[in-house]
Amino acid sequence: MDKIKRTERIAALTRILVSRPNEVISFSAFTERFGSAKSTLSEDMAIIDTSLRHHGLGQLQTVAGAAGGVRFRPCAQPEGAGRFLAGLIDTLLSPDRLLPGGYLYLSDLLADPETVRGLSRIIACAWYDERPDFILTMETKGIPVAMMTADYMNLPLVIARRQSKVYEGSAVNINYPSGSGRIETMSLSRRAVKTGQRALIVDDLIRGGGTARGLISLMDEFSVEVIGLSFVLSQDTPPRKPIEREKSLLLFSGGSEDRPLSITMADWIR
Amino acid sequence: MDKIKRTERIAALTRILVSRPNEVISFSAFTERFGSAKSTLSEDMAIIDTSLRHHGLGQLQTVAGAAGGVRFRPCAQPEGAGRFLAGLIDTLLSPDRLLPGGYLYLSDLLADPETVRGLSRIIACAWYDERPDFILTMETKGIPVAMMTADYMNLPLVIARRQSKVYEGSAVNINYPSGSGRIETMSLSRRAVKTGQRALIVDDLIRGGGTARGLISLMDEFSVEVIGLSFVLSQDTPPRKPIEREKSLLLFSGGSEDRPLSITMADWIR
Repeated sequence: MDKIKRTERIAALTRILVSRPNEVISFSAFTERFGSAKSTLSEDMAIIDTSLRHHGLGQLQTVAGAAGGVRFRPCAQPEGAGRFLAGLIDTLLSPDRLLPGGYLYLSDLLADPETVRGLSRIIACAWYDERPDFILTMETKGIPVAMMTADYMNLPLVIARRQSKVYEGSAVNINYPSGSGRIETMSLSRRAVKTGQRALIVDDLIRGGGTARGLISLMDEFSVEVIGLSFVLSQDTPPRKPIEREKSLLLFSGGSEDRPLSITMADWIR
Repeated sequence: MDKIKRTERIAALTRILVSRPNEVISFSAFTERFGSAKSTLSEDMAIIDTSLRHHGLGQLQTVAGAAGGVRFRPCAQPEGAGRFLAGLIDTLLSPDRLLPGGYLYLSDLLADPETVRGLSRIIACAWYDERPDFILTMETKGIPVAMMTADYMNLPLVIARRQSKVYEGSAVNINYPSGSGRIETMSLSRRAVKTGQRALIVDDLIRGGGTARGLISLMDEFSVEVIGLSFVLSQDTPPRKPIEREKSLLLFSGGSEDRPLSITMADWIR
């Protein structure tokens, strides 16, 4: 490939890195593609990194060693996360979201690309350093946020189901008590995960914690360690038994006819 | 904001545009952010566009008018899509994916970020010109591909459910015949879509077409037009009644113990 101008190369490099977040791309892949020396590309990367950091748009990280290279992570200043969540709280507290019975209508926000990107970016940036091997969610409502988190972390998404499905092959099923005291089932294909891996649980909502504890038990069956859990909304009143390593985004209480809904940002984000 | 060098500005601009595909961002948003004249930014955009097109990484499009600005679309040459799908076919035909009963194990690929990005990019690029208002999918397996398509098109994702859920509020339910002749139900919140909108259906698999026709009937109830349908895998033998405006990616036949699985790329992609 013929040599190109630095400005054009920076546009192409930024496009490639940003579209494949957290993937370590080797310098040799870039030297081949652009016909540029490694020293030239290092200067390009320094320019991109400076600009991303300066504008709160993320950062590049250089990884040394045989499997080394450079990766993009979309993490910026914490204030950005705070502003985004403050806006989301305003949207959530809008009176027309309240459904009969005190339920909150969330389905649109949990599948709106801009909202999902914002939520997933905060979750990904909270857990990069713990190096999970995959993202685990329970069907259905949390799948978009979990998928986008998987995208930002460059990890596979694993979806536990309420029932075994014939097209998932041999599966492990567990029974667990739900918040309402009923016994529920969850199922995961034997092929989905491997012994010794590390899971990050991502889902839309945690109330009593029954489903979360069910997912942790399910991972026990696979000898997989749960290194963390993030929920978009975590019920904080009435209090529940705490779950270790939970970093949820928004805490809520109330939401019934006699107790108005209250939503606050989790302390670790501010 | 103080002026910055063109190289740094191009890195930041590319990052912003690529992370918000198909969103028309006004030049004034950029002039404010970077303290640069519109003419300078136009030159930047021209450089970015040239580079993206040259390297098969997508393109920028300028939209004129009051709501005008510039948007990024990830569409490249068709050969890229063909190469990606040829690789996917090889993976799918690997013998260890065959489950008892002739089913194909797909769940990992349908939730692997790189695969999902590749599939969603092809679907988004096939439908941009038809300007749908939202992406519609049926829970569960197609949600990741549908979500990533929604992300590339900057459209909300709407998920039809097998049952009404109390947290989705008042819902429209329809009954439809599934491929096996049984009557199934699907449900969608009344709040999810609006009369007169245009839907693009995205899902993982179509066999007999029962669910797809169910989704089309469901949209009829909302007076929503289905402008197109894309499935990752579409069964082509035995033949079924064609569905208008279907652009699926891969066609398959066989997959039982007596008939080996065969998968080919759809003609419109080649």
